[in-house]
Amino acid sequence: MSQFWSSWFREYPDFGGMENPGYRTGSFDGDDDDDEMVDIAGVTLDFSTTDDAPPLSSGGYEEYSRNSSSSSRAASMNGNGPTKLVDPLEDPVPGVGTYEDFNTIDWVREKSKDRDRHREITNKSRQSTVNLLHSVSDAFSGWLLMLLVGLLSGALAGGIDIAAHWMTAMKEGVCVVHFWYNHEHCCWASNETTFQERHHCPQWQSWAELITGTSEGAFAYIVNFLMYIFWALLFSFLAVALVRAFAPYACGSGIPEIKTILSGFIIRGYLGKWTLMIKIITLVLAVSSGLSLGKEGPLVHVACCCANILCHLFTKYRKNEAKRREVLSAAAAVGVSVAFGAPIGGVLFSLEEVSYYFPLKTLWRSFFAALVAAFTLRSINPFGNSQLVLFYVEFHAPWHLVELAPFILLGIFGGLWGALFIKANIAWCRRRKTTRLGHYPVMEVLVVTALTALIAYPNIYTRMSGAELISELFNDCSRLDSSQLCGYQQPANNTDTGVGNTLPDRPAGPGLYTALWQLALALVFKMMITVITFGMKVPSGLFIPSMAVGAITGRLLGVGMEQLAYYNHDSIIFKGWCSQGADCITPGLYAMVGAAACLGGVTRMTVSLVVIMFELTGGLEYIVPLMAATMTSKWVADAFGREGIYEAHIRLNGYPFLEPKEEFEHSSLAVDVMRPRRSDPALAVLTQEGMTVGEVEALVESTHYSGFPVVVSQQSQRLVGFVLRRDLLLFALYNGRKRQEGVVSSSQVVFTEHTPSQAPDAPPPLRLRGIMDLSPFTVTDHTPMDITVDIFRKLGLRQCLVTHNGRLLGIITKKDILKHMAQITNRDPDSILFN
Amino acid sequence: MSQFWSSWFREYPDFGGMENPGYRTGSFDGDDDDDEMVDIAGVTLDFSTTDDAPPLSSGGYEEYSRNSSSSSRAASMNGNGPTKLVDPLEDPVPGVGTYEDFNTIDWVREKSKDRDRHREITNKSRQSTVNLLHSVSDAFSGWLLMLLVGLLSGALAGGIDIAAHWMTAMKEGVCVVHFWYNHEHCCWASNETTFQERHHCPQWQSWAELITGTSEGAFAYIVNFLMYIFWALLFSFLAVALVRAFAPYACGSGIPEIKTILSGFIIRGYLGKWTLMIKIITLVLAVSSGLSLGKEGPLVHVACCCANILCHLFTKYRKNEAKRREVLSAAAAVGVSVAFGAPIGGVLFSLEEVSYYFPLKTLWRSFFAALVAAFTLRSINPFGNSQLVLFYVEFHAPWHLVELAPFILLGIFGGLWGALFIKANIAWCRRRKTTRLGHYPVMEVLVVTALTALIAYPNIYTRMSGAELISELFNDCSRLDSSQLCGYQQPANNTDTGVGNTLPDRPAGPGLYTALWQLALALVFKMMITVITFGMKVPSGLFIPSMAVGAITGRLLGVGMEQLAYYNHDSIIFKGWCSQGADCITPGLYAMVGAAACLGGVTRMTVSLVVIMFELTGGLEYIVPLMAATMTSKWVADAFGREGIYEAHIRLNGYPFLEPKEEFEHSSLAVDVMRPRRSDPALAVLTQEGMTVGEVEALVESTHYSGFPVVVSQQSQRLVGFVLRRDLLLFALYNGRKRQEGVVSSSQVVFTEHTPSQAPDAPPPLRLRGIMDLSPFTVTDHTPMDITVDIFRKLGLRQCLVTHNGRLLGIITKKDILKHMAQITNRDPDSILFN
Repeated sequence: MSQFWSSWFREYPDFGGMENPGYRTGSFDGDDDDDEMVDIAGVTLDFSTTDDAPPLSSGGYEEYSRNSSSSSRAASMNGNGPTKLVDPLEDPVPGVGTYEDFNTIDWVREKSKDRDRHREITNKSRQSTVNLLHSVSDAFSGWLLMLLVGLLSGALAGGIDIAAHWMTAMKEGVCVVHFWYNHEHCCWASNETTFQERHHCPQWQSWAELITGTSEGAFAYIVNFLMYIFWALLFSFLAVALVRAFAPYACGSGIPEIKTILSGFIIRGYLGKWTLMIKIITLVLAVSSGLSLGKEGPLVHVACCCANILCHLFTKYRKNEAKRREVLSAAAAVGVSVAFGAPIGGVLFSLEEVSYYFPLKTLWRSFFAALVAAFTLRSINPFGNSQLVLFYVEFHAPWHLVELAPFILLGIFGGLWGALFIKANIAWCRRRKTTRLGHYPVMEVLVVTALTALIAYPNIYTRMSGAELISELFNDCSRLDSSQLCGYQQPANNTDTGVGNTLPDRPAGPGLYTALWQLALALVFKMMITVITFGMKVPSGLFIPSMAVGAITGRLLGVGMEQLAYYNHDSIIFKGWCSQGADCITPGLYAMVGAAACLGGVTRMTVSLVVIMFELTGGLEYIVPLMAATMTSKWVADAFGREGIYEAHIRLNGYPFLEPKEEFEHSSLAVDVMRPRRSDPALAVLTQEGMTVGEVEALVESTHYSGFPVVVSQQSQRLVGFVLRRDLLLFALYNGRKRQEGVVSSSQVVFTEHTPSQAPDAPPPLRLRGIMDLSPFTVTDHTPMDITVDIFRKLGLRQCLVTHNGRLLGIITKKDILKHMAQITNRDPDSILFN
Repeated sequence: MSQFWSSWFREYPDFGGMENPGYRTGSFDGDDDDDEMVDIAGVTLDFSTTDDAPPLSSGGYEEYSRNSSSSSRAASMNGNGPTKLVDPLEDPVPGVGTYEDFNTIDWVREKSKDRDRHREITNKSRQSTVNLLHSVSDAFSGWLLMLLVGLLSGALAGGIDIAAHWMTAMKEGVCVVHFWYNHEHCCWASNETTFQERHHCPQWQSWAELITGTSEGAFAYIVNFLMYIFWALLFSFLAVALVRAFAPYACGSGIPEIKTILSGFIIRGYLGKWTLMIKIITLVLAVSSGLSLGKEGPLVHVACCCANILCHLFTKYRKNEAKRREVLSAAAAVGVSVAFGAPIGGVLFSLEEVSYYFPLKTLWRSFFAALVAAFTLRSINPFGNSQLVLFYVEFHAPWHLVELAPFILLGIFGGLWGALFIKANIAWCRRRKTTRLGHYPVMEVLVVTALTALIAYPNIYTRMSGAELISELFNDCSRLDSSQLCGYQQPANNTDTGVGNTLPDRPAGPGLYTALWQLALALVFKMMITVITFGMKVPSGLFIPSMAVGAITGRLLGVGMEQLAYYNHDSIIFKGWCSQGADCITPGLYAMVGAAACLGGVTRMTVSLVVIMFELTGGLEYIVPLMAATMTSKWVADAFGREGIYEAHIRLNGYPFLEPKEEFEHSSLAVDVMRPRRSDPALAVLTQEGMTVGEVEALVESTHYSGFPVVVSQQSQRLVGFVLRRDLLLFALYNGRKRQEGVVSSSQVVFTEHTPSQAPDAPPPLRLRGIMDLSPFTVTDHTPMDITVDIFRKLGLRQCLVTHNGRLLGIITKKDILKHMAQITNRDPDSILFN
């Protein structure tokens, strides 16, 4: 096991990127059985077709027999044909029907398997009350699972929020009375706090006060600064060390990998319990360290881990990769729901951005789970304001049509920034992969943290956490707001008739000018540091940094517009809708629009982004500015490259992901893509009769294909069916010999329904029709590739056979398609790593 | 043309159901060319395989040549193979590639066609600036179209709202100063209106006042009553007469038919301009007549008509059935958006309930169009309150967990009512189809209107329109509310400290008791009359009547709970959360939950329903009650039958609709479903060479299949391709003869790439490889039907060939699948009418 891991990491040091191959050989190797329970599938033996796979041995077979929990029947495609060998509810041959690590699942087979299972249960339910109850509980298990996923994810998100809040505050000081209170709670609990000075109370002491006894002066500042850097380095070191030691999969945002998994790929352990535990701990550490990263993306990964682990409680989901992916799709919605307090936006995010196969049933269940999670989080109330997120806002002033121009400008900025960020980040990550930089992940994290802390501390807008910054930028200045951003000149007559929360536009005061300078510096810093932060070996989300960049830009533009309107309210632009003393411009709205634009430019989300932002404000009328900015941002960014950051990382890592949004534009035919190519040797096929066990074994061992077509005869090449290598090896040759007595190497292998006549002294034939897929997918050689790609996407195929006039010509696998697409776009076709 | 129509209506009198076969032969037959522009496809000739199709004649070919606007190349599936005969941007052979009325489209072919077109434009765009501009305008035409659809639909919806409001008021009286003002506007404009008596002003005179001069007394009441009945009868007569005379497709809600059209069916004229005009006029009339129907469903039809008509402005959408359906999906979202002022809910409605193929691009565009429409409607401001719907509400009081019990009770009621309504309505509609009832649609409408008006007038809750009723029931009683429903006993000390809008629970007064009685009677009446109203030959939506039933029930239960809480605030149930003098129960919320439950029971909507209701209230916290009720309602209703009202009507009318939500549970194989059956004669096939033109013509004329497989030879039966009957007749035999000189009946028909050697004196062969689909879809005979059905659904196939060991066995069409599914569920397989 550990040998495989290490060999794999030596082969692909970019993924996980750790150099020490033995990092997983510690105390966690012993409880393999336990670990299996949280693997994506229970089989840990590697049968993969790469060269470092262990050779077939009897030990392997023993391993298979042990893993009876995650096996199912192989020949499910045969439906209820006369050759049905195995019962869908029992596991006569363990291991058949499961997948190896880094392999693609066969959606059609998985869904067919689930329908068989369902049919079986429905039929049985008529026989007895127990079976009826079983059938009912089976029908409701999906809902129960969703409830559990929602509850667990909501609770974990609440815990992460509270812990990150506390530890972020710890960088600056400590609550001397109740050390477990963060800054705000500490002063809320104090009696000596006034509303004006609500962040100052004697109970909360900065490190300088604790160590030197004074909170004023240059020395205290330096002490505080050093303590800030110390804590930041400590947190980030702990984060990267934990990731490195226990769960390399816990790094990054996880969304590219989840997209790949949902498209039908197996990455064992990516959603396991170790990943979950380490991701939660290191996420808190990473966020608290002050690095330019957010917790929103990783929360999606956390929710998916929860869902995957909880799937093991229900046979229906444990044993079926397709069904499990439905749950994972819902979990992605849950993750966004708790990250932004936006259940509907979360569901649309899952639908638009993450999911591959999203039936309507999943839509409804995702919505349920997202709501449960949101309400769990709300009852935990991590921010003490009965909102789910820090940056919930309410605007009161309407916007005017003229303001669409600055909103669209923000959209253009967002698109440009998104395109630039992706290019820069991918270039940096490629450098990390190819140069020696990638060999020192811990050092890299420490250096970046030190740099971040050094530059961030002097500027209050970079010192505060990203969520706090966004919250402050979104906020509309109320009359009593004492923050620097609201440092306007107070109007002379303080007793004007401004009703409620609306305040007229006012001229900027010195406080605001200082704030604008600091914000401009913060913008430049955030733009630089985020590029090198995203992709380090710590959990890191991209939502908050992107939104922060946009929010700063938006706020700057908003304040600019406000001052422009104040001083030029008689000009053509403002005349008619912005009279003196009116509240025309809401800089907070500009910040929100800017945040949406930048996030849209980076991720290329559209509907879900607008709906998430809509749920943050609650006002339908602000959708139009958001939509204008998001649409512009997407168009501008798409002009520089059609990939969002997640797709770019998927391609960088070479995951076999068939993008469902992109149309296949090239005009090749199936015959151009299929294997074997014209110069290659002929396709390795089995004949439905006439081959001996020995010949089949020799063929299987001399090739590394994962499946073999079965034809009528070598001459006619008419297609009969398809046999998977796994099934052939495992079920047929090994078990077949054991089950059917007298099978020897010279026995005939027979795929037909009726045993052919043979010499009376010949050994009994080995009958293998049961493991053959009698309905392999075929296309003709003249099928255009756009249609073939469409079929692969919509049906979720692993492979497809190519025929000409009824004769078998070749085979197209998902990997062939991906390689072909890479070739078309002048990329290295060998960059697609796995199949 | 008219002959076809009349013969068709004689055959299926249930669809449209008019007896007079000549109703469409009036003045509108002359401008066929104009009408064609708004047909679903431009070809009006009927080539259908039913017996009443006109025989092939040269007139038919002339008709084809005329209709050059809606044709495209046939052999698009061939991609860029060497045999490419036609250019995708030109139409060398008009009529090829279009579909006949009541036929299923081939999604794969349509999408492939669009990809070819796009590829062509992209390639050309590199050549010159003009082409580049063409390419850019092509890319943005989708957005422009969406903008237009949103603007037009929003404007039409606003007009319908205003007109229906005015005409509804006209039933009771008239504004003597400005007769074009409705009741509300009339009194708003008056200076003599007080807030308390805002519905009484001297300018607004009831009919009794106008005719007899007095508004009091029994005589005045009778005069008003008679005028009410007179106007109701007049409106409904006009509605049914207009529908009958000009646009039979304008009746009903239209959603079942739109679902069918979106699944890939052609119903020519269903979304045409006559249907649109007549639907708008008759919708206003029907709503104003006081019948128990709503305008929400028909608005979806109106929006789809707009979209279809606007599609004709853009070649990209006019010529491609698949692309047009994307626009129609977005239009369905627009319809719901303007009906409920819920853009997000509208998009989800389209996704969940109506659409068949909904790519992500459509999601984003639908959202855009829905927003544009909502804002257009808001700027028209039809209700004068800057809301998009009458029943927008804001609740302030939170709900308590204990209240989930009554909410779930409402869900159970909604489910039961939904199931009962569907059963009763379908039984009534079937009776209308099978008995003499269906022969008198005008009489039926008049009788039902008279009945409705007679019973509805005495009760104020049935006299007011459905939307007004719902608005009143959703409304929370404020302190100054003078309506009967708020007839609580005023607390003794009127100066209590109730802040803002929250009022403590109060004991019911006599006004409220009267209202409850009237509501109970209204409930019984609404439940009965809606069953016979929905399905009549007037435009009729089901949303408002269903919601009204639920809202009444909910309000009754809510008031009951409120009184229970008031008098038992010390009991176990209420103790702890409902102290005396607190505002615990919001009866308006109960009404809303009840409305959602009943609408959910009838339509089986889930997510979209909850989101629509959420957008009406704007408060995230009310989602949980709505969700609990909707979920319960769906489960309860599903226990009695899995079909919603739209699916039930689709089945009743026999539309070929392959339900995407329902799983195919039966365990048959492809070989059980395919044609020919074992006892049937062999499949009619063409051979790739060796047949003469005469033989092919004889085969085509002696059969009525819509396509023929091409095989290598009669002996081997190995599949080469598939030829459509239309293309064979039109393109090959007619044009082929014209184009290739010397082709006579004894010429060989050749489908191979190379002309076979033949006798030197033989006539030149007719080469038809260009019209052959070289990549027909095939499955093996052992493929389980659940997988086959999945393939049909996901790829949108029309037919699929069945092979065994590479040899052609038979063919499965969509119709075969639908017939098979009907057989399994013990329905008459011949009820599926069209293919």
